[in-house]
Amino acid sequence: MSELVNRGVLRLEWARAHMPVLAVVRKGLVESGALKGVKIGMALHTEAKTGVLALTLKEAGAKVRLASCNPQSTDDSVAAALNERFGLETHAKKWETTDQYYENLNRILDLEPDLVIDDGADLIHLLHTKRTDLLRSVRGGNEETTTGIVRLRAMEKEGKLAFPVVDVNDAKMKHLFDNRYGTGQSTMDGILTATNLLVAGKTFVVAGYGWCGRGIASRAHGLGANVVVTEIDPVKAIEATMDGFRVMPMAEAVTVADFIVSATGMKDVVREDHLRAIKDGCVLANAGHFDNEISKVDLERLGKKRRVREFVDEYAMKGGKKVYLLAEGRLVNLAAGQGHPAEIMDMSFSIQALSADFLARQAESLGKRVVAVPEEIDDRVARLKLETMSVSIDTLTPEQRRYGETWLEGT
Amino acid sequence: MSELVNRGVLRLEWARAHMPVLAVVRKGLVESGALKGVKIGMALHTEAKTGVLALTLKEAGAKVRLASCNPQSTDDSVAAALNERFGLETHAKKWETTDQYYENLNRILDLEPDLVIDDGADLIHLLHTKRTDLLRSVRGGNEETTTGIVRLRAMEKEGKLAFPVVDVNDAKMKHLFDNRYGTGQSTMDGILTATNLLVAGKTFVVAGYGWCGRGIASRAHGLGANVVVTEIDPVKAIEATMDGFRVMPMAEAVTVADFIVSATGMKDVVREDHLRAIKDGCVLANAGHFDNEISKVDLERLGKKRRVREFVDEYAMKGGKKVYLLAEGRLVNLAAGQGHPAEIMDMSFSIQALSADFLARQAESLGKRVVAVPEEIDDRVARLKLETMSVSIDTLTPEQRRYGETWLEGT
Amino acid sequence: MSELVNRGVLRLEWARAHMPVLAVVRKGLVESGALKGVKIGMALHTEAKTGVLALTLKEAGAKVRLASCNPQSTDDSVAAALNERFGLETHAKKWETTDQYYENLNRILDLEPDLVIDDGADLIHLLHTKRTDLLRSVRGGNEETTTGIVRLRAMEKEGKLAFPVVDVNDAKMKHLFDNRYGTGQSTMDGILTATNLLVAGKTFVVAGYGWCGRGIASRAHGLGANVVVTEIDPVKAIEATMDGFRVMPMAEAVTVADFIVSATGMKDVVREDHLRAIKDGCVLANAGHFDNEISKVDLERLGKKRRVREFVDEYAMKGGKKVYLLAEGRLVNLAAGQGHPAEIMDMSFSIQALSADFLARQAESLGKRVVAVPEEIDDRVARLKLETMSVSIDTLTPEQRRYGETWLEGT
Amino acid sequence: MSELVNRGVLRLEWARAHMPVLAVVRKGLVESGALKGVKIGMALHTEAKTGVLALTLKEAGAKVRLASCNPQSTDDSVAAALNERFGLETHAKKWETTDQYYENLNRILDLEPDLVIDDGADLIHLLHTKRTDLLRSVRGGNEETTTGIVRLRAMEKEGKLAFPVVDVNDAKMKHLFDNRYGTGQSTMDGILTATNLLVAGKTFVVAGYGWCGRGIASRAHGLGANVVVTEIDPVKAIEATMDGFRVMPMAEAVTVADFIVSATGMKDVVREDHLRAIKDGCVLANAGHFDNEISKVDLERLGKKRRVREFVDEYAMKGGKKVYLLAEGRLVNLAAGQGHPAEIMDMSFSIQALSADFLARQAESLGKRVVAVPEEIDDRVARLKLETMSVSIDTLTPEQRRYGETWLEGT
Repeated sequence: MSELVNRGVLRLEWARAHMPVLAVVRKGLVESGALKGVKIGMALHTEAKTGVLALTLKEAGAKVRLASCNPQSTDDSVAAALNERFGLETHAKKWETTDQYYENLNRILDLEPDLVIDDGADLIHLLHTKRTDLLRSVRGGNEETTTGIVRLRAMEKEGKLAFPVVDVNDAKMKHLFDNRYGTGQSTMDGILTATNLLVAGKTFVVAGYGWCGRGIASRAHGLGANVVVTEIDPVKAIEATMDGFRVMPMAEAVTVADFIVSATGMKDVVREDHLRAIKDGCVLANAGHFDNEISKVDLERLGKKRRVREFVDEYAMKGGKKVYLLAEGRLVNLAAGQGHPAEIMDMSFSIQALSADFLARQAESLGKRVVAVPEEIDDRVARLKLETMSVSIDTLTPEQRRYGETWLEGT
Repeated sequence: MSELVNRGVLRLEWARAHMPVLAVVRKGLVESGALKGVKIGMALHTEAKTGVLALTLKEAGAKVRLASCNPQSTDDSVAAALNERFGLETHAKKWETTDQYYENLNRILDLEPDLVIDDGADLIHLLHTKRTDLLRSVRGGNEETTTGIVRLRAMEKEGKLAFPVVDVNDAKMKHLFDNRYGTGQSTMDGILTATNLLVAGKTFVVAGYGWCGRGIASRAHGLGANVVVTEIDPVKAIEATMDGFRVMPMAEAVTVADFIVSATGMKDVVREDHLRAIKDGCVLANAGHFDNEISKVDLERLGKKRRVREFVDEYAMKGGKKVYLLAEGRLVNLAAGQGHPAEIMDMSFSIQALSADFLARQAESLGKRVVAVPEEIDDRVARLKLETMSVSIDTLTPEQRRYGETWLEGT
Repeated sequence: MSELVNRGVLRLEWARAHMPVLAVVRKGLVESGALKGVKIGMALHTEAKTGVLALTLKEAGAKVRLASCNPQSTDDSVAAALNERFGLETHAKKWETTDQYYENLNRILDLEPDLVIDDGADLIHLLHTKRTDLLRSVRGGNEETTTGIVRLRAMEKEGKLAFPVVDVNDAKMKHLFDNRYGTGQSTMDGILTATNLLVAGKTFVVAGYGWCGRGIASRAHGLGANVVVTEIDPVKAIEATMDGFRVMPMAEAVTVADFIVSATGMKDVVREDHLRAIKDGCVLANAGHFDNEISKVDLERLGKKRRVREFVDEYAMKGGKKVYLLAEGRLVNLAAGQGHPAEIMDMSFSIQALSADFLARQAESLGKRVVAVPEEIDDRVARLKLETMSVSIDTLTPEQRRYGETWLEGT
Repeated sequence: MSELVNRGVLRLEWARAHMPVLAVVRKGLVESGALKGVKIGMALHTEAKTGVLALTLKEAGAKVRLASCNPQSTDDSVAAALNERFGLETHAKKWETTDQYYENLNRILDLEPDLVIDDGADLIHLLHTKRTDLLRSVRGGNEETTTGIVRLRAMEKEGKLAFPVVDVNDAKMKHLFDNRYGTGQSTMDGILTATNLLVAGKTFVVAGYGWCGRGIASRAHGLGANVVVTEIDPVKAIEATMDGFRVMPMAEAVTVADFIVSATGMKDVVREDHLRAIKDGCVLANAGHFDNEISKVDLERLGKKRRVREFVDEYAMKGGKKVYLLAEGRLVNLAAGQGHPAEIMDMSFSIQALSADFLARQAESLGKRVVAVPEEIDDRVARLKLETMSVSIDTLTPEQRRYGETWLEGT
């Protein structure tokens, strides 16, 4: 056990060393004291970077409990280190069953949190369905994924949302970097680790050309793949085309695909009719929040399953074709890879920490709705990041500033 | 003369052949009749694609006059063809002086237009300062540049705007494509035509990482340059860094620059102190709307000017350094190149034509403010474009559509 | 006329200012005197950079005559300036007929040259067929294209070659840069100038994945195209695939092509059966030496020809399809564009000048065969270029040098 | 143990499924019988793809023993599976000491091999120094790395080489793909696995712009890095510059480097003076054959070592700077990653297998020297690969073939 703890401690240390913005934020939070005694229930991917965020909140005086927001995304060494070395109550285990998963979320809620920090909105959903008794005491929450925000907006629209939730995902310093450069790199990392297959010269299909999909397409292209994009939005489809990629319906894409990665937030993106037409040997992976983008139900109906590598299940279909599903269709970057680089999470989690501070100060004034991250927080994280990257930029001269405000000067 | 007219006719025909979306839009406008008899004053870059837009509006029944929105951006053959072959009154000449430029704008206004279509807002500015007598009869306008919108919002803020102006620039089908892929390609085209210099292996500085700057950076990189970005916005600076470019202040960038292209909408982006430190032989070009991004006043104070190629002025500075300014600091893609490809303007000008139709129908209900392009217009142009590109995309199944609206399904 | 001369003078000056390696070489040649009085007949593309080479040889004391190696590649202003301002006898005219072309080559040979400098081997071929009387006095030649070298090796193989020819093309400092980065950029420049069409989002077919084809593919990709490669060599086909491009036979490629550029050195790369299946609106261009890569005979049989832009001929085929041939199928980068950037020709022409010097010194010792450029010349040009680019590199330590020569050190 | 064996079996099966060319080759070798009874001693990286090669030779009738050519590159599960499931004698262990390493090489030689297959030339070196008694019976060998070939040519030059060695590395189907696309992807894979750090936006220094260095530079760039190249060859330095990278001496590069990867075949590429000037936090990795490219001696003299992650050693230097060495400076792609993708090794190992067959047939006729892979072998592997990739290419028409051989047709 101690070896596991030690590995976790080193991973936390490594992540912390590459999260300099959060270090500055931490210092500010400790000094301000706004989080002192605040009970925070967190359901995020329990790995090193999340551990650094949880410890940051703890150091700022909060009482923190942590579970995973996905049954496959836990780094057991980090969970062990948090529990045993840092006394931060963590309920998460890699490959936990769905029952264990929900049991762990319930343990978090047993804390009777003032604030919740969620990823995918399962925790908040649980609060609003089976743990409604606790709703009264929750002052607010953060949510950091596109998927979660879609669910929360639907709740808000139906008047079901019981407290304000800060939309961390839409902070510029989150989605512009985490979803694009983070998901891009870590998805490829997960695929390479799982398969050790060549990307160069392969046809690589990306479903969805949102920020995540763009990141993945860019990195697959950067590894030499011929990238194909599928979309439902014509504007994004034209953008993908002009970025040099081919765009086609999934029904056509499957016939040429060596890899298919889904990043849509939608279910059944790859389903029975696609699987029947799919190219032999195709590798399927999911980069969206839930494990329903590639239909496992359909896969299991059509093919005989066999584990052929640690994160690879082969489905042998009638007629002899085989396809390979990575990480049981769960987030491939976290289940098979090591998740986003710390330098990316440095930005996302600085937004998280400052948004928690923001909620602690003024949740009551925000209303029961999805709330944008205040611009000052976004801007502060941007400036801190730039500084830690040792990059300098220009500032307007007074004369330029004046010019920017006038409409009188023209040709 | 007739040879000039013939060339213009061919150029209009070539452009028209590559603007299939506008062809569909044209057919609709002709059938609807909403523009019948409407007087439209246009100040856009008078070249082939603009000619096709102007003729589109004319064919839809409008009475149209056209001038240029920039003294260097006229294609004289197109102006001649419009005037002499198509009977569309055009007042524009390449290399016209500033006086002639404003005289031409005044000729447009003499039409007493119901609608104005502007680029950079000089025409609308003229209306609001020297031709206020006409303000009463103008029902609305379109504006298609970032620069113009900044000016118009300043006017709106001061309560000075006398009619609604549709912000064509912010339509997705305009700025996502025109500013990025259009400006990107045509700026490089202008630079290659003007200089015939190698881009590969050169240090290429792009000032501003907005949509235009991104497009230019991407294309310069695509031609083998080592790209450096300057910015004033920390978020964009971090994006540029993560896109693989170096970011630094202009004062440092000038010391390594072989090319500097400005695309900021701000004045004096390259100015005296920069010019004193600049690398010998550096080529300066502007891709922003006005010719004040690179300070010509400062250049002329510091260097002796000599025209060394058709679109290249050498400034020989004390101490022996030489720098080269392209196209007198005017929009290099239009002054030295042939402007945006027709396929790009097909989208932008379909938005223009449909926005004019929208104004003709309901300008009075919009208020004296900057108005967004209706989403239906954006969406229609997107779907038409996709169709003409023969690209097919997916549509949600009913089951997927239902899923997208619920918040109940989770892990 | 004087305006033409002035333009030519400025173009020569501009090119000269961007050819710093040739400047150093020139100084050495002038000092050495080895070319003094040597009669040199040149058949190269008569434009600015070639002019600088010709003047370099003249300044080194040679008696030089220049014609073009392609009827479409002359810059008339440069020819005028060479003749009238610099007294360098030049026989070349843009759009000259094939008869005039050969007449001009004959004028060059009337000089009774000691050395010939050729591009495509038409001049050397003429010497070996119709002007055999002069063969005795020719001491040697240079040839700078893949096409020419293929012809010369065939002559050598048949024992027909009458003097040594230096294979300038295979110098590393020539083909690695001229064929790849030079052809890549200037081909795209020619296409943009001729068509003003969008490259982003288009399917761009490159025939041939040699150095030229790679350069073109890379630049088309850099402008946002989806690139398809056709090849006859399986190794190159696999390389193209792993570079992320699709590879397919031409018969299939024509059905998806928006642009086709041929760079193979082979004839009839696009021919009747391809033209029958081609995508409507496809643009055809040639980047190979001769105008037979795209079969004009077949085009003219199948389509009705009409000039629609300065460098664009439309062929309207039965059934309504149209295709567009650029620059009459001649080298598009020289006929429609401005040829290679001066910085590229700085390397190629430094190799040319030093090879001429090498021949002048020791042609007699080389035998009647195709001769490689001496390694010292290649190396010298490389080091000079690096220096003029202000790039520094590492050198081995004595200890490292020793290590590089041993086989005893292992794991 | 059995779990280890099972994992190895699955890995071998996975690799085999992605090596279709080798499958065709295998069938041919089995049928021909030329390897029947031939004793083959192999020293290659003992992982799944190598296992498939070794089993291929065994299935063709050879008696095979296998050891690793690098103390860190063994996959213990594959070694176990080969020994226990397939009865192929394998002597290799991950993290073996140098003594164990040489002991294992000696076990291979105890077989008294007819042929040896080497990587880095340690095995052949051992034969020529401590096991010279066996030299008489060795008929020939294969060597597959640049490093090994350099050593063997030095031996040949000194007249020390006792048998012919086929230079597998210089087969087109090997170095063009293995060194470039293989090393490129697997090096990045190793770095991501070892560090989980962000590549986008980082300054990534590649030492050496040979085929391996180019592959690494291309992939690092593809992941969003700003790439810097160091070189000793001016031609390669200019190529790197024109590919858009910055080139500078290592002494300067270390001051801006976030990552440094060495791929030179030279020792002490990063050494004391560089380490003193290096940027804090820099990650050092080696992609060259031996672990002496980054001086561990100097690192250990200057810094205090601590293992901070599985494949990461921190060196804390005086003054507070830390640098991180991956995989003890051994081949990062094999030590921390999973080595080249099977699809790449499919080509390299088909060349290996056919070269062994070639040696078995006619070693005696080749002389005691480094011998090129016969062109037919290269060509056969290329055509087979293309076929298994389902890529079709063009073939010359008879008319084109004739044209390619003539020199008479010109302008």
